[in-house]
Amino acid sequence: MAVFTPVTFEQLSAWLEQFSVGTLVSLEGIASGIENSNFFVTTTHGRYVLTLFEKLTREELPFYLGLMAHLSQHGVPCPAPVAGHNGRLFGELNGKPAALVSCLAGKSVSQPAAAHCAAVGAMLAQMHNAGASFGVTRENPRGPHWWRATAPQVKPFLDATQATLLDDELAFQASHRLDQLPRGAIHADLFRDNVLFEDAHIGGVIDFYFAGCDVLLFDVAVCVNDWCVDAGGEIDAARTRALLTSYHRLRPLNANEHAAWPVMLRAAALRFWLSRLYDLNLPRPGEIIHPHDPGQFRRILELRVTAANPPWMV
Amino acid sequence: MAVFTPVTFEQLSAWLEQFSVGTLVSLEGIASGIENSNFFVTTTHGRYVLTLFEKLTREELPFYLGLMAHLSQHGVPCPAPVAGHNGRLFGELNGKPAALVSCLAGKSVSQPAAAHCAAVGAMLAQMHNAGASFGVTRENPRGPHWWRATAPQVKPFLDATQATLLDDELAFQASHRLDQLPRGAIHADLFRDNVLFEDAHIGGVIDFYFAGCDVLLFDVAVCVNDWCVDAGGEIDAARTRALLTSYHRLRPLNANEHAAWPVMLRAAALRFWLSRLYDLNLPRPGEIIHPHDPGQFRRILELRVTAANPPWMV
Repeated sequence: MAVFTPVTFEQLSAWLEQFSVGTLVSLEGIASGIENSNFFVTTTHGRYVLTLFEKLTREELPFYLGLMAHLSQHGVPCPAPVAGHNGRLFGELNGKPAALVSCLAGKSVSQPAAAHCAAVGAMLAQMHNAGASFGVTRENPRGPHWWRATAPQVKPFLDATQATLLDDELAFQASHRLDQLPRGAIHADLFRDNVLFEDAHIGGVIDFYFAGCDVLLFDVAVCVNDWCVDAGGEIDAARTRALLTSYHRLRPLNANEHAAWPVMLRAAALRFWLSRLYDLNLPRPGEIIHPHDPGQFRRILELRVTAANPPWMV
Repeated sequence: MAVFTPVTFEQLSAWLEQFSVGTLVSLEGIASGIENSNFFVTTTHGRYVLTLFEKLTREELPFYLGLMAHLSQHGVPCPAPVAGHNGRLFGELNGKPAALVSCLAGKSVSQPAAAHCAAVGAMLAQMHNAGASFGVTRENPRGPHWWRATAPQVKPFLDATQATLLDDELAFQASHRLDQLPRGAIHADLFRDNVLFEDAHIGGVIDFYFAGCDVLLFDVAVCVNDWCVDAGGEIDAARTRALLTSYHRLRPLNANEHAAWPVMLRAAALRFWLSRLYDLNLPRPGEIIHPHDPGQFRRILELRVTAANPPWMV
């Protein structure tokens, strides 16, 4: 989307006085993102991103911004929220909750090689390790509760085969939700466009606004379903092995997690199939988005359902 | 000084496992600094500075590292300590307390123009504003208590005229210590070599290991005595006006501070005259340093004592 809520140079100059970030030099709208209004902000101290939250509320923001601050303090190259003189990580601008975060270097990689996947696996493990000491909890907003609430709303738009796939998968997941798996703060949306690379290294991990507390392995499965697949959604063994090996080196996966892997790959596919069905068929009024193809994740789900073996055994 | 305590690549690789900063790529000793052993550390996540504290203790470090973390979170471009998985900002390496902080861009400016002084004034005011919400306190370790303890130790090395200057100034300061002036966390050592410029902008403020809680105006006076003087130590009116005007715009100086300014310039000169006398005449055993000339700050003190008017009235 483009910028929903406009901000003028003068408005931002005045608003920035509550921070220690110097004087405003330039302001530029960012034409991406589907949930918020974002701007590149340059001050005499450096480059930042200003986000006006169009949907997230003042009650929800402390989790997201606190997690970003925590991970950043622990060395994860994610946007670091700048605190105002009042110590708060967000304020209000033009009637919207608004936050200023550090701007990260790098570009997303659309055709990742095994080396990129290894870097993502290591980074994800480090985020999970660092997140273990984050004290705030918030349920994954796109977790099983959301699946069960959303499925009946999108089902009218499905043909009989797809509706059966959905029902069967919800039943399968309900019978396999493994509560003994390690849990913690997860990014939950670490797709290729949310990782910025500088050459072979990760310069930034962005877009934490789907984060929540859930099974850590679910986060790994979300990554593999995006980073380690071919155009048809089939698992690429070399990239998957690279990602999982790097992850495992920093946060060893236990026997329960090994056993749950095929279930998690299906859960991760289900989550994005559902959200894409919802965004395509039930767009919010006045919203200008280019909905992603739900079919991609339906195919991924079908492939994972029929996979005989965990992909690392390929 | 050079590096006191050596660290090998293998030692650091293992030590870094407690952080989420990726894998060690390179390690290089830094041949400057007079209190600690410093290294440039490059990992797959970025560039850091590793400091092994040769004198500061585990009890003292939380103030310094906490202040740096606080200021960094508030937008001040200072080294940000990286927290370990245990949440702590420092650990132990080769028997010394050790911290990993972010590495900042820029170079110090040895011949500052008025524009540099204006940038320093603004940055100092923003540090003072941001520091107001920092909850930890620690007395300025080089404040009036330290002056009174140190003067008798260095006095035997002074001639009669200098000894009289020292006695008179201590008496003058004792009769003028203005307790009603705004206080807070101050850097206390913001000389030219502790500010990194990128073109006209400040990319970093470094070396917080003399920081403490004291009169904010004292911090301004320390800056002016270094940034805004000619080779003989005399105040340069244009640079002083640039620094003070920028500072005042962001943290307005009140009437008490206006009145106290000549006293503070003398206090700031006294502090560095004393420490340089101490370092020259009472070097610690085994220490390799190139002591700064105490005469520079004796002359500055003499000039400030004889100045008829506050320099901004020049």
